[in-house]
Amino acid sequence: MTLDTNPSATLAAFAAGLQFDAIPAPVLRRTEDLFLDWYASALAGKGARPVEAIEAYARSMGPDSGRAEVLISRRTTSPHFAAMVNAAASHFAEQDDVHNGSVFHPAAVVFPVALAIAQDIGASGREFLAAVVAGYEVGIRVGEFLGRSHYRIFHTTATAGTLAAAAAAGRLLKLDAATMLHAFGSAGTQAAGLWEFLRDAADSKQLHTAHAASSGLASAYLARSGFTGARQILEGAQGMASGMSSDADPARLTDRLGQRWATAETSFKYHASCRHTHPSADALLTLMQTHGVEADDIESVTTQVHQGAIDVLGRVTVPATVHQAKFSMGTVLALAAEYGFAGLNEFEAHYLAPRVAALRDRVTMQLDAEVDQAYPQRWIGKVTVTTRDGRSLSARVDEPKGDPGNTLTRAEIEDKAQRLAAYGKGATPAEVQALIARVWAVAEAPRMDRWLEARA
Amino acid sequence: MTLDTNPSATLAAFAAGLQFDAIPAPVLRRTEDLFLDWYASALAGKGARPVEAIEAYARSMGPDSGRAEVLISRRTTSPHFAAMVNAAASHFAEQDDVHNGSVFHPAAVVFPVALAIAQDIGASGREFLAAVVAGYEVGIRVGEFLGRSHYRIFHTTATAGTLAAAAAAGRLLKLDAATMLHAFGSAGTQAAGLWEFLRDAADSKQLHTAHAASSGLASAYLARSGFTGARQILEGAQGMASGMSSDADPARLTDRLGQRWATAETSFKYHASCRHTHPSADALLTLMQTHGVEADDIESVTTQVHQGAIDVLGRVTVPATVHQAKFSMGTVLALAAEYGFAGLNEFEAHYLAPRVAALRDRVTMQLDAEVDQAYPQRWIGKVTVTTRDGRSLSARVDEPKGDPGNTLTRAEIEDKAQRLAAYGKGATPAEVQALIARVWAVAEAPRMDRWLEARA
Repeated sequence: MTLDTNPSATLAAFAAGLQFDAIPAPVLRRTEDLFLDWYASALAGKGARPVEAIEAYARSMGPDSGRAEVLISRRTTSPHFAAMVNAAASHFAEQDDVHNGSVFHPAAVVFPVALAIAQDIGASGREFLAAVVAGYEVGIRVGEFLGRSHYRIFHTTATAGTLAAAAAAGRLLKLDAATMLHAFGSAGTQAAGLWEFLRDAADSKQLHTAHAASSGLASAYLARSGFTGARQILEGAQGMASGMSSDADPARLTDRLGQRWATAETSFKYHASCRHTHPSADALLTLMQTHGVEADDIESVTTQVHQGAIDVLGRVTVPATVHQAKFSMGTVLALAAEYGFAGLNEFEAHYLAPRVAALRDRVTMQLDAEVDQAYPQRWIGKVTVTTRDGRSLSARVDEPKGDPGNTLTRAEIEDKAQRLAAYGKGATPAEVQALIARVWAVAEAPRMDRWLEARA
Repeated sequence: MTLDTNPSATLAAFAAGLQFDAIPAPVLRRTEDLFLDWYASALAGKGARPVEAIEAYARSMGPDSGRAEVLISRRTTSPHFAAMVNAAASHFAEQDDVHNGSVFHPAAVVFPVALAIAQDIGASGREFLAAVVAGYEVGIRVGEFLGRSHYRIFHTTATAGTLAAAAAAGRLLKLDAATMLHAFGSAGTQAAGLWEFLRDAADSKQLHTAHAASSGLASAYLARSGFTGARQILEGAQGMASGMSSDADPARLTDRLGQRWATAETSFKYHASCRHTHPSADALLTLMQTHGVEADDIESVTTQVHQGAIDVLGRVTVPATVHQAKFSMGTVLALAAEYGFAGLNEFEAHYLAPRVAALRDRVTMQLDAEVDQAYPQRWIGKVTVTTRDGRSLSARVDEPKGDPGNTLTRAEIEDKAQRLAAYGKGATPAEVQALIARVWAVAEAPRMDRWLEARA
């Protein structure tokens, strides 16, 4: 057996060897921010029909006790099912994080796996954080590697997410480099997730994260048992890129490993909608503030976007559900114009309100060369508003709120966590307050045991 | 909501509506043949390292009781895990069935799911058989639809298999047509499986069937709970074919539903190797018999094959494992020449024997226009042998042994079942004899409960 030096192997060796002490403190602090943001997103999934269907499946097929928590129900089960349900739950409210360059939502596939295994084996907070960073660094690079052609058909969070989950799981299970590479092989050959569901506003998005988390977790456990996988599942001639991408760039897989911390490039979501709508919403809010424009003053809006936004959002005209509304550029801009923020409650209460619907139908997307070229490294927002009194106004934002250069403060993240928990009734404000304190101190935790007591 | 008449919907409606009484008796009898053949293949997986690793995962993550049997260990658990392990087990020995036109192994993904659910809900033998036929008819058509371009990168048994599993599961759960279509959507968006593992002789093949079975099963249960999926997951603009095929033909999805019984087109494997080697092996055996040639007389062999055989088998030169030997055309032809049959025991005992290795290295594959054009509808075998005394001899077979026109008798299937069970020590000859009797009477079974008692 020769020494593996291909990109898959180099990435696997990095994930297997990542030490807590090698991670810069600001990256660790950002990882804690991402943890709280994820935890609250999972609580926000409580009660959602698709999430509860996955929890019902987990109840019927999995064990009814264990050391891993299902956050929405506060029961415990095996890591496989806890990861599955928590992954589904945290990707429901469309408030979980996103890495721009890879168009990948790392939290929803990394944290469920890391938390479930850490609880099961009683890992320390430091081990947990190192595993999370391993998952983020791997998943983001895999997403970047698979490229834009992949994202046109495949939900990168589902596909790259399976590798991210395997990396986090493998790191917690202390797989060596060769064994981690086997876990990658098993993960990559299970990676799946198609955008076709958007056309019907179907529930697949939560299934995608559930599947990525549980399949990636399984891959790491199987590797630990000696189960082997392809050594070049990412870049090989019959591997993921060969089957599912036409512009894959293997150099992205090993881009500045250990020097560039992709984890800290991850953005928080401010609006409760598909990330592709955020630059436009922020540009519109900037325009309204700069020019003193009110919603009533707006005759029409044109927003200049990248092709990916048109691909993902293009087909929704009149949203049939709240979820579909989050993929409707017109609805998002109309809610932002009316309420100053397109949040969970704004969607629930007003997505079909007559004033919102009227403005929605006067919003147009236009492909813009500058925005498209900058994407996905930068998500520029541009809007042009025609006012009722005949003016044509334009505005732009270069970093939407929540991006690394325009990030949320811990106070803003705490507020968002309270809103998310309240939305799903997943925890009381006092419980969330206690969770917050515990998250900020997670690096000192000797054991990652239970986080929420079962309800009376 | 408009009435769905797209190919995915038509196929789902067929699977949901298939009645036992509508299935011709010869198709039902063939389904029983396939059931015994599958059951014995699953028993043959007992003790195999990759299969036992998957069983260990199922033990650690799933419940330790239930109504669904894990055949290799005789324990019971939930349908999810029983299907997962039995699917892995039945695809290990490379003796499970194959449908030529779709290059798809239906048994390993359909029977595990149908048996696990039937046991769990106490379905009748008739319901079980109808569900199996639904799974075969769907999976075969999906494989044909995805086409040759798909198979170059993807393991069709893994991808089409997820839909086949969903169809069988959905039929047993009595999903209506619309709900079955949701199950298809969830299955298709989880469909995965890449050939990359062949390069390293890795264990992914058993993971592929395990994944297809458990994901397809989950899709049906989720649909029953109201979880929705894409309505055109197969042929939609961001569906399976769009992402994973360049020659997909939607007409294949609905080809003569209810008139053409693809189930009965399925072939049994006679040799214990990759099906792509069988036409060549049978042609060589025909040549040796016709011309009175012994293994010692052979100087070299050229076998004329289709491109798919070169794609799948091309990269193995000196096999490193028994499993890899089953993908080595040279090894298979050498075993056939030496022993008259490339069976499980021949592989185990002799795959690296000096005489076998010497002949292996004198075997060449050559792309043949006639063979390639006939494939995958017909798997023609052609060989040319140069003898030590300087003759050049040729032979062909138009249907390898086990194909529908050259099928195995029930006596041959029973013999094969005994060999398979003995190979894995999965059951005693007396137990297999009892299983055989029960399989031939399955259509009369009021309830599909346990098949094997736990060992003392």
